Amino acid sequence: MTDRIGAAARVVASTGTVIEAVTAPFGLPLIVTRADWLVAGPATLAALSSHRNRYDAAVIACFGDPGLDAAKELLDVPVLGISEAAFHAAAMLGRRFGVVSFTAALRPMFEECLDHHGLTARCAGFRMGPPFSGDPGTVAEERLDLLAGLCAESAEQDGAEAIILAGGPLAGIAPLLQPRVAVPLIDGTQAAVRLAEAMAGLMPRHPRGHRSRTLTGFAPEVAGLYAGP
Amino acid sequence: MTDRIGAAARVVASTGTVIEAVTAPFGLPLIVTRADWLVAGPATLAALSSHRNRYDAAVIACFGDPGLDAAKELLDVPVLGISEAAFHAAAMLGRRFGVVSFTAALRPMFEECLDHHGLTARCAGFRMGPPFSGDPGTVAEERLDLLAGLCAESAEQDGAEAIILAGGPLAGIAPLLQPRVAVPLIDGTQAAVRLAEAMAGLMPRHPRGHRSRTLTGFAPEVAGLYAGP
Amino acid sequence: MTDRIGAAARVVASTGTVIEAVTAPFGLPLIVTRADWLVAGPATLAALSSHRNRYDAAVIACFGDPGLDAAKELLDVPVLGISEAAFHAAAMLGRRFGVVSFTAALRPMFEECLDHHGLTARCAGFRMGPPFSGDPGTVAEERLDLLAGLCAESAEQDGAEAIILAGGPLAGIAPLLQPRVAVPLIDGTQAAVRLAEAMAGLMPRHPRGHRSRTLTGFAPEVAGLYAGP
Amino acid sequence: MTDRIGAAARVVASTGTVIEAVTAPFGLPLIVTRADWLVAGPATLAALSSHRNRYDAAVIACFGDPGLDAAKELLDVPVLGISEAAFHAAAMLGRRFGVVSFTAALRPMFEECLDHHGLTARCAGFRMGPPFSGDPGTVAEERLDLLAGLCAESAEQDGAEAIILAGGPLAGIAPLLQPRVAVPLIDGTQAAVRLAEAMAGLMPRHPRGHRSRTLTGFAPEVAGLYAGP
Amino acid sequence: MTDRIGAAARVVASTGTVIEAVTAPFGLPLIVTRADWLVAGPATLAALSSHRNRYDAAVIACFGDPGLDAAKELLDVPVLGISEAAFHAAAMLGRRFGVVSFTAALRPMFEECLDHHGLTARCAGFRMGPPFSGDPGTVAEERLDLLAGLCAESAEQDGAEAIILAGGPLAGIAPLLQPRVAVPLIDGTQAAVRLAEAMAGLMPRHPRGHRSRTLTGFAPEVAGLYAGP
Amino acid sequence: MTDRIGAAARVVASTGTVIEAVTAPFGLPLIVTRADWLVAGPATLAALSSHRNRYDAAVIACFGDPGLDAAKELLDVPVLGISEAAFHAAAMLGRRFGVVSFTAALRPMFEECLDHHGLTARCAGFRMGPPFSGDPGTVAEERLDLLAGLCAESAEQDGAEAIILAGGPLAGIAPLLQPRVAVPLIDGTQAAVRLAEAMAGLMPRHPRGHRSRTLTGFAPEVAGLYAGP
Repeated sequence: MTDRIGAAARVVASTGTVIEAVTAPFGLPLIVTRADWLVAGPATLAALSSHRNRYDAAVIACFGDPGLDAAKELLDVPVLGISEAAFHAAAMLGRRFGVVSFTAALRPMFEECLDHHGLTARCAGFRMGPPFSGDPGTVAEERLDLLAGLCAESAEQDGAEAIILAGGPLAGIAPLLQPRVAVPLIDGTQAAVRLAEAMAGLMPRHPRGHRSRTLTGFAPEVAGLYAGP
Repeated sequence: MTDRIGAAARVVASTGTVIEAVTAPFGLPLIVTRADWLVAGPATLAALSSHRNRYDAAVIACFGDPGLDAAKELLDVPVLGISEAAFHAAAMLGRRFGVVSFTAALRPMFEECLDHHGLTARCAGFRMGPPFSGDPGTVAEERLDLLAGLCAESAEQDGAEAIILAGGPLAGIAPLLQPRVAVPLIDGTQAAVRLAEAMAGLMPRHPRGHRSRTLTGFAPEVAGLYAGP
Repeated sequence: MTDRIGAAARVVASTGTVIEAVTAPFGLPLIVTRADWLVAGPATLAALSSHRNRYDAAVIACFGDPGLDAAKELLDVPVLGISEAAFHAAAMLGRRFGVVSFTAALRPMFEECLDHHGLTARCAGFRMGPPFSGDPGTVAEERLDLLAGLCAESAEQDGAEAIILAGGPLAGIAPLLQPRVAVPLIDGTQAAVRLAEAMAGLMPRHPRGHRSRTLTGFAPEVAGLYAGP
Repeated sequence: MTDRIGAAARVVASTGTVIEAVTAPFGLPLIVTRADWLVAGPATLAALSSHRNRYDAAVIACFGDPGLDAAKELLDVPVLGISEAAFHAAAMLGRRFGVVSFTAALRPMFEECLDHHGLTARCAGFRMGPPFSGDPGTVAEERLDLLAGLCAESAEQDGAEAIILAGGPLAGIAPLLQPRVAVPLIDGTQAAVRLAEAMAGLMPRHPRGHRSRTLTGFAPEVAGLYAGP
Repeated sequence: MTDRIGAAARVVASTGTVIEAVTAPFGLPLIVTRADWLVAGPATLAALSSHRNRYDAAVIACFGDPGLDAAKELLDVPVLGISEAAFHAAAMLGRRFGVVSFTAALRPMFEECLDHHGLTARCAGFRMGPPFSGDPGTVAEERLDLLAGLCAESAEQDGAEAIILAGGPLAGIAPLLQPRVAVPLIDGTQAAVRLAEAMAGLMPRHPRGHRSRTLTGFAPEVAGLYAGP
Repeated sequence: MTDRIGAAARVVASTGTVIEAVTAPFGLPLIVTRADWLVAGPATLAALSSHRNRYDAAVIACFGDPGLDAAKELLDVPVLGISEAAFHAAAMLGRRFGVVSFTAALRPMFEECLDHHGLTARCAGFRMGPPFSGDPGTVAEERLDLLAGLCAESAEQDGAEAIILAGGPLAGIAPLLQPRVAVPLIDGTQAAVRLAEAMAGLMPRHPRGHRSRTLTGFAPEVAGLYAGP
């Protein structure tokens, strides 16, 4: 998964940008519930901390953007989430954007994430496939026709001018679908890479002036972010 | 602080309700930033976990309600936050409620917390004192006249029919202020105790049907919540 | 109907709480339109007035909460509506709540009621049965399978973490349905009883300081509320 | 008061429109609280009922629009409230409208009324005078300079393109103020008269198909509206 | 088309009102996209300019209301759009209004237009027919049964108390449909005529005090509006 | 002005990006009113058209973003407005952003622009200077202390985590102010350049499949956009 995300990122990275894909050092293998999202936060911070000072911008490549708000505060470089990036990129490419995914079960999480980022008013609607219980690793290919149909409905009936392909299992599927869809398709990871580059140039390393504080009960990488620069 | 909260809770607890006030076993001594709020989440879960099966309902007695959404999912008893409880109680006692505190610096956090709980439309406005840099332990008494004035403005100009006294340093101040204010004053901890009792009777211990999962990198109490009942 | 409501209330009432179920002394037998809702207001106030000083809290057990805002103003004890209570209880038991009923015709009224109480943002969606023209007294049992299916859709597709069973004919049906539904089901009357108890302890009898005024053209019980304490 | 309203109405009425100003036959002399608003509803319905079939459209000339929603349902001709009319007229005369009144105490009621009519998004802001405890009958003239200043702030700083003069005591003041204000001033009664004429021509007498129902406990005029056409 | 619009307008115009139907002197024959809407703006201004001082109020008879905000600023008489008028009239005739059209493809445009006019909260929902690729000139008659069914759903399931027939091809169809629909049907052009009359009486010719400015690159009629009165 | 904008753009442009600053070929020298905004749209389209196929992305460097929605539709490369870019960049750099400008008179325009882009929920508030009637060319320097104070209030009292410097006269002032402000300052032009680069890499030249249409009454450059690729 980490490799696949790294590869997708490199496709759109600017010349000179080096992509390093990193797995969270601990936590849960899969993020599903609100509680999962919470504990994924410190795990994400640990990954960001252990590589600190080796990157100019960071992307949290997990839908739901765990740890994002904290990371923006604690780090002195821009940090973007892939949901956040998908919403902003879609909004800049078209006035109304749609969200398409392979299963209805993801709609609640995306609705809340969209609301958290404040862009609900720009969303033309969700078009989701039926419940799904197969292998997430192959669902994108298996449901390709379904996805093309949902994208057509999003564009033609909801007026979507750009469409976000939502959910981890759809990562990398955009190039296969784009020829069948009349409006731009957005891949969250790729949007995040481009927007992270943009923000890094706009607002370079920016010391946030935290004073050192002692955090107990967490992995040393997390506590290290509180110990100051 | 923990003792003061316990005492305030006991004032309104029903006969037969036993209040046990517990401090989070790790984390940070003070919760101020978004990152603080994130790391306070697992610390709160640890406290809730280590006493598991010994309570029928729980209150997270920290404005901002850290870990609240996760705790509601992971525990089989009702869990309420004191901000959450204050907003709901105020909304049930009056159609428009005001929020009053001793310093403007708390407004952004309360605005976001109010928005998170979805009750922004019920809020008649914030009335906050000027910036403050003294001792939080005595500010409530020192600014008592200021607070009475802010409450009067909230009721008379904003139309507040109930007023939330917001911020940890105002805990327990309601009885002193109430005689000077024409509308009900809400203390978050006390509201939470009464509402937790109410919910415990409405929805007794309710197994949530989680399957056991392995969480790494966190204190054993937190991981224990994922290990199943 | 009044008996059935009283029985449901007693199931959840705390030890020591005495439930007295009262029918409005005049008005209309059934509340359907906006105009009905208006005239049900003074009828509700009359019932509340004629028993004044004999209760510590009141529940208006009619969906749509007629007279609620006026009663909160005129009485010196907490008053809750069953719609209001259902929305608040659901919001405290789960971050997203669903609303389920046996017929689509009730959706507009509930949407407006939800909006009036300011909790629209917390609602995950409505799942309503098809138009219905049979006997309301038996519809709950007849459509039990339908209701179980709607609850499942609400939980699985809308992400509801608690579900309100809406509409008078569903009063008391929750115990029959709960074993078939994975998330807590909320009965408005029962929620209102528990929340009214909670508020009564938080904010005991609270003189509102009205001056005496003369109201003409209404039943003496209603005018009596204006005549002062 | 009734005479003054009638006179203001006649100033803008079309040729051929006859204005009949009617006082509610019972209720309260002054409408201030939510409870007042509720009981004013049936009183307004009684006035509308006792003249039934003698008018082609009706205006409820009380800020807060008591009984409006019920009257729209029960009568077969258009009924408009003066708050409702002011908001719609202002929205049609300018993209952003302001609300100006002589005292801050009226803001909560107008905010709720604006929200009830759904036009909050069009309001550029409220500009209200300081608390007031004098004679409402002369406040408009006494605070004329204050009102002119508030209107200027509304136009210049809030970007108001039309301004509503809100509150009963400002009825009829618009012609005195308009020469000192650069944007159109709206008088609610006058707006309501013109809009009621417009609606009467658009949607003439329209039987609503109610079946006859028995309403008890109210004045015969109110019950009469339920007895059918 | 222009003739048909003029005829519909005359049906509801008051005695003494003269309707002059005018075609935009340039631009595009059909307005579909956002860009079309933009360029239709100056074209509409040109039509309004070339007849200046010959009318007391103007109606822009194109759904989407091109040029409306600019026209309200530049002209000294009331200007209404037919979408704007339909929304306001529907809101005054019923608390919840529905929007019905023959094809889903029009929903996005109407949603945005509704949002622009700030009345989204009053809309009970859209009921649109399936995609359509036939002759717009005859679709209203061909889909009359479909439209009657959609109106019934809007009233019965969405609770619509008035219904807007949306889209140019439905102009003039209301009289055919009204006998089959239980709630008032709104034709945008007719609503606009009545409301323009209302506003003209409320706010007669009102010099806006523009200073003369030079606009280059546009047709002389458009530049003329900037040259001052 | 055009030169100053070009210089600011070049400061943040990536290596390899060539900035060409272009003035609209016709229209008005200053954009103030809604009507100005409308006519600036075709003028902007003309500038974009006359250089077509010579750029990979475009920025409309005028607050209010005239012609933006149309340009996004008509061109096959990304187009960004500087208001749009400022809002999105600020939202990605901090959860709450403030808007600061030298005069209150700009607030209404920015509020509407913010609402148009759908990011109102992310805005922590406006902090604007008093009315201003001097030379816009020097106001930024003259009011530098005022602006620093407004930025401090935005950060400390409104909780802004990034601040947009709004209004043409503040272009290029960010480097002077940044040392005095604790949170990132956003210059709209610079944000737009970085975001346009990002979008150009994400969604390269993308034929929009328009059919050729005839637009009359506009400058040939504008009509040319309708004539097809």
